[in-house]
Amino acid sequence: MERIRLGMVGGGKDAFIGGVHRIAARMDGQFDLVAGALSSTPERSVESGQALGLAADRCYGSYEAMAEAEAARPDGIQAVSIVTPNHMHAGPAITFLKRGIHVICDKPLAATMEQADELAAAIRAAKSLFILTHNYTGYPMVRQAREMVLAGDLGTLRVVQVEYPQDWLTEATETSGTNKQAEWRTDPARSGAGGSIGDIGTHAHNLACFVTGLQVESLAADLQSFVPGRRVDDNAHILLRFAGGARGMLWSSQVAPGNENALRLRVYGEKGGLEWAQEDPNYLWLTPFGEPKRLITRAGNGAGTGANSVSRTPGGHPEGYLEAFANLYSEAAEAIRVAGTGQKPDPGLLPGIDAGMAGMRFIDAALRSSRANAVWVTL
Amino acid sequence: MERIRLGMVGGGKDAFIGGVHRIAARMDGQFDLVAGALSSTPERSVESGQALGLAADRCYGSYEAMAEAEAARPDGIQAVSIVTPNHMHAGPAITFLKRGIHVICDKPLAATMEQADELAAAIRAAKSLFILTHNYTGYPMVRQAREMVLAGDLGTLRVVQVEYPQDWLTEATETSGTNKQAEWRTDPARSGAGGSIGDIGTHAHNLACFVTGLQVESLAADLQSFVPGRRVDDNAHILLRFAGGARGMLWSSQVAPGNENALRLRVYGEKGGLEWAQEDPNYLWLTPFGEPKRLITRAGNGAGTGANSVSRTPGGHPEGYLEAFANLYSEAAEAIRVAGTGQKPDPGLLPGIDAGMAGMRFIDAALRSSRANAVWVTL
Amino acid sequence: MERIRLGMVGGGKDAFIGGVHRIAARMDGQFDLVAGALSSTPERSVESGQALGLAADRCYGSYEAMAEAEAARPDGIQAVSIVTPNHMHAGPAITFLKRGIHVICDKPLAATMEQADELAAAIRAAKSLFILTHNYTGYPMVRQAREMVLAGDLGTLRVVQVEYPQDWLTEATETSGTNKQAEWRTDPARSGAGGSIGDIGTHAHNLACFVTGLQVESLAADLQSFVPGRRVDDNAHILLRFAGGARGMLWSSQVAPGNENALRLRVYGEKGGLEWAQEDPNYLWLTPFGEPKRLITRAGNGAGTGANSVSRTPGGHPEGYLEAFANLYSEAAEAIRVAGTGQKPDPGLLPGIDAGMAGMRFIDAALRSSRANAVWVTL
Amino acid sequence: MERIRLGMVGGGKDAFIGGVHRIAARMDGQFDLVAGALSSTPERSVESGQALGLAADRCYGSYEAMAEAEAARPDGIQAVSIVTPNHMHAGPAITFLKRGIHVICDKPLAATMEQADELAAAIRAAKSLFILTHNYTGYPMVRQAREMVLAGDLGTLRVVQVEYPQDWLTEATETSGTNKQAEWRTDPARSGAGGSIGDIGTHAHNLACFVTGLQVESLAADLQSFVPGRRVDDNAHILLRFAGGARGMLWSSQVAPGNENALRLRVYGEKGGLEWAQEDPNYLWLTPFGEPKRLITRAGNGAGTGANSVSRTPGGHPEGYLEAFANLYSEAAEAIRVAGTGQKPDPGLLPGIDAGMAGMRFIDAALRSSRANAVWVTL
Repeated sequence: MERIRLGMVGGGKDAFIGGVHRIAARMDGQFDLVAGALSSTPERSVESGQALGLAADRCYGSYEAMAEAEAARPDGIQAVSIVTPNHMHAGPAITFLKRGIHVICDKPLAATMEQADELAAAIRAAKSLFILTHNYTGYPMVRQAREMVLAGDLGTLRVVQVEYPQDWLTEATETSGTNKQAEWRTDPARSGAGGSIGDIGTHAHNLACFVTGLQVESLAADLQSFVPGRRVDDNAHILLRFAGGARGMLWSSQVAPGNENALRLRVYGEKGGLEWAQEDPNYLWLTPFGEPKRLITRAGNGAGTGANSVSRTPGGHPEGYLEAFANLYSEAAEAIRVAGTGQKPDPGLLPGIDAGMAGMRFIDAALRSSRANAVWVTL
Repeated sequence: MERIRLGMVGGGKDAFIGGVHRIAARMDGQFDLVAGALSSTPERSVESGQALGLAADRCYGSYEAMAEAEAARPDGIQAVSIVTPNHMHAGPAITFLKRGIHVICDKPLAATMEQADELAAAIRAAKSLFILTHNYTGYPMVRQAREMVLAGDLGTLRVVQVEYPQDWLTEATETSGTNKQAEWRTDPARSGAGGSIGDIGTHAHNLACFVTGLQVESLAADLQSFVPGRRVDDNAHILLRFAGGARGMLWSSQVAPGNENALRLRVYGEKGGLEWAQEDPNYLWLTPFGEPKRLITRAGNGAGTGANSVSRTPGGHPEGYLEAFANLYSEAAEAIRVAGTGQKPDPGLLPGIDAGMAGMRFIDAALRSSRANAVWVTL
Repeated sequence: MERIRLGMVGGGKDAFIGGVHRIAARMDGQFDLVAGALSSTPERSVESGQALGLAADRCYGSYEAMAEAEAARPDGIQAVSIVTPNHMHAGPAITFLKRGIHVICDKPLAATMEQADELAAAIRAAKSLFILTHNYTGYPMVRQAREMVLAGDLGTLRVVQVEYPQDWLTEATETSGTNKQAEWRTDPARSGAGGSIGDIGTHAHNLACFVTGLQVESLAADLQSFVPGRRVDDNAHILLRFAGGARGMLWSSQVAPGNENALRLRVYGEKGGLEWAQEDPNYLWLTPFGEPKRLITRAGNGAGTGANSVSRTPGGHPEGYLEAFANLYSEAAEAIRVAGTGQKPDPGLLPGIDAGMAGMRFIDAALRSSRANAVWVTL
Repeated sequence: MERIRLGMVGGGKDAFIGGVHRIAARMDGQFDLVAGALSSTPERSVESGQALGLAADRCYGSYEAMAEAEAARPDGIQAVSIVTPNHMHAGPAITFLKRGIHVICDKPLAATMEQADELAAAIRAAKSLFILTHNYTGYPMVRQAREMVLAGDLGTLRVVQVEYPQDWLTEATETSGTNKQAEWRTDPARSGAGGSIGDIGTHAHNLACFVTGLQVESLAADLQSFVPGRRVDDNAHILLRFAGGARGMLWSSQVAPGNENALRLRVYGEKGGLEWAQEDPNYLWLTPFGEPKRLITRAGNGAGTGANSVSRTPGGHPEGYLEAFANLYSEAAEAIRVAGTGQKPDPGLLPGIDAGMAGMRFIDAALRSSRANAVWVTL
């Protein structure tokens, strides 16, 4: 089976998520990275590209040049990964979609609602696929959780507790001059108006919706910027109301010392509960009401088809963040291959424009609610 | 040293907290239970009292009778524990205070704000002590946490996350006819208008304030009664704003399957964080920003004076709920002995009317906020 | 119900376990401590006794004097707790048994096999009860574990892993002049020839036998004294062979930094496994082969009669070391009351001379095996 | 940078570890799998190879054919991964080494000591590299642990506790006819005379030696075959004596229900301890004597150069088994590239023939000791 030819926009030096996408694309041998517009200057783009083994003539100085040239090549890229800061998602995505190239885009969808709407329109008009890497949905035990909820194991859902605390912005790192990640992620022009809510709150929101199958109907948000001078929120406390009557709380923070990437979801229904934590992702607690708690392990006892089909090793061999990310790439590969035959692929559980727009509405609602002193805002 | 002569109001058959108070009073050999108005009928009161080894003539049919008779005896009770449902706290407490008998009262202070105000007035007028058993403040590692926060180990506080989920009211247990605890705790007439917020939310609120030394200034609450027919809230989502600028979230629930008594507090400041969980109470996580997490153990490495002085055994010998409760009784005994000498005792960390009124204002504010769709209400 | 009149031998200043016995005796209101020979000199014995509220004339200068005087009083002690160093167990125990006074004795049974044999003979000849406080058997979840094993939930047992690491003797604390506990516990004349194996290895051995219902048939031991100058072992590695074919390993250590009192038992059979850890005693893992792991909690879902009958509070209210210890005292009280009626009490699960002798044989076999370079020695 | 051309022996259908090697080889983009003798019949080898995207003419029916043909091609493989059952390690390895092809071989080294000796001789004679995938040494926190021990953070080592329990052979799975893994791993002809000790005991032994920098000098082993009819041990209890005076225990088991892949190492020295568990590999406990326990996280606070250089993502993004495995492949790639320049590569921490022979001596000694009733056997 031929590997899918992949390009990349962004992901040069000082980037974090680009390297993750490359490993994810490589892990299951489904993609070959063959072209890139990796940095914002042609020189650095070539430098970054050659360090990755790209041919010099496929290291482009801009995504527009890459789209044009690759679309013209018989061996041009079939798909592109967009791993730039948020304000540079929509532009490239639209450009490649117009060229008939499938797009795999990092989240959130865009920096502004306007960009998001424009992108959504382009996706509707395109024949190519658009995949948004809400990567936590790729974890086997997240799949397991979703499967159990949808099977009714928890009964009608009542309470959703989701949180994503980090600590890396506890101090004013963005002014240190040495942390590019902190710089753009706290810059509204590049990141969007949301800080923690855009960067990680959207992950929490997406995870809660993915697992429960529910949509957030309205929210009341109290956002804070604890670090003096910070231009975006670095902590957010949000009350949630889901369609159907479930209620929830969402906490995102970048100023909670001791927390690295502590995304955690707890869901409770009439018949039982579930708990999953990203930092210990091979475990899922199932708590049927009135029975002992059960610990379900990845590819172990109690794990079902949905989880096992995205596992690579037997239970007890911990799989992690990169494997979860790679699961989205492998599912994308499958969809891309189907699309290549002219058929319309079933996206399955792959996040796309719907998840992306839901995330944008979440950010927007949280910002509006908080500005109005935490009034309820409908999404 | 003579033991303090103790009476008890409530705590007969089918009671839960009365037995806890008795063990707590006994553990350090500071009290002797010698009288009781244990049940609501004279016959059952005698029956319950004799099962506990009380003399028949000191098993009273009403608290009024007990107060009168005991006050008249030369060997009458010096203190009384009030362990009745919430609506029966204020009346007995006022009665005994007027008789010059020290009062140790279960929380919350009362079922209504009116009762609470009346009791507060009586306490101000009385010479006797009033102690409210916010028992979680008696845990050594809670003392440790407070000591560290007040010493500035965390820097200025920013974020407080506190929660108290349980699952015992996941179903409509109060209608089963076999669960007296569920009956009165979901009956507004006996429990007060707050359900989960009064029963356990107040514990969460109190713990957060005790450890941080901060007061909740305002809150926005979204309360739910998930179980059909339930007359009080069984789940509560609350946004908190503390005096001084810290923000927080509070979750209380009685419908979260898999949670027994999962009170948990996390506090984050500019310099570090703390985490403590009631079900694993001998551990305290300290997370100084930029350093490895540290696990401080009760009476172990890193534990300070405040924690060690309320520990009974070396580290690694788990102490629990009853020991924490007993710590309040022992501190009460010390205060009562000082009061017996005619001096005014230093209440130290013993919760009293201030904590009680703060709890009542918390419940009241949460109810008012929720009725107004989670608007901010000042406490 | 009258409280049982209790005396105590040992447990004065600088003692650890005496205070534990006193709390345990007090917790359920079944005993009153009324007499004591608490220290090795009359003056200090009186001083210690009065600090505990004993009448001066019942603070004795020797256990012999106490036995004689108390046996002669109409209100004399009915039972005595012996909480002295190991070499002072047998003498007092025999003396009190001869006087018809029930004996509750700390473990191990004695410092030497000769003392143990002599005590065993005295017990056989006596009408009074002899109870050995192998206190870890009092934990509800240990009872639960035993119940499940005996019910066959694990099938035929195969593997037993038990360990009891501590770290308090990592350095030569016994030479510091400030740690009486370290002094006598590393002194062969007072502690017996076994160091870690006598002090904590016996607990591990006892726990394994109690839960599995099996006896150790033979062992091969490799003992070490890592701290220069130490006269007894401070670390022990032992292979176990149980009657019936199960095999095991036992590790005891006092030089394992980071371990406080980390007694842990794991048992595996043909059908499943169990795991319990003393420092987190309210949890028991059950791992049926081929099914998800289950976490059974004290007084919670999955807990049975044996565990619940020794629980004082609902699930989620952690009970600990003192409660487990108190369970033995309460069961002792029950047996003493039955004996008081002239009937022969059923000791139930109370450890007595059999457990004590098994422990002594364990220590003796371990020492002999290790001296012979870890050859197999039959118990 | 050109990818290294890789071949594979073994790893066809029903294989487990072959797929792991392929992912590990792919993850960092250093290798291209271009040839294979994947199965024991030519037809199945072609079938397996083509499913992996190999060209038909590079899917060989035997490793001899592959070695000959690939050595003759200008674009022939530079390295080969040997992922066959143990008895098929030495033959292929020797063949490829003789052809000047680097060998990456799964552990243990061989099924018999004779094969091992023969292979060792071939390695000494060869110019090519020989790398043995003791994959657990690739975990960042294992590197961290080793670095700390060697830096003296624990002081002189005293006690090593290592264990590797699993449960997958609790029943006689090898007779089910449906589990090829169980079949060969319990077949002495293919696996070697050691069962659990060869399959996983060697991992435990290797990990202990890797982290401590110590060699096992002698051991006393008690092996069991609990499952009736099983031809190799499925549980092993081993006492260890290390050069320099440290002592240890090693437990391996395939019949411990509830354990998946629960390799765990604890090391204690005069100044502190360390604890690491394979199933939660991103955490390392450091327990300096007299200080609070510290939790060091992968790429987080407290992690050093050795760990961070084999990490791909920031802390809190769990990396697992495949990443650890891939670390060995990446280090192998680096060594292979150096060798390609004609220089002698520094193997760094890559396990090779020394670790392999140590493992074989460990298995051999354990078998001999156990047959002689657990006498001490020198390695």
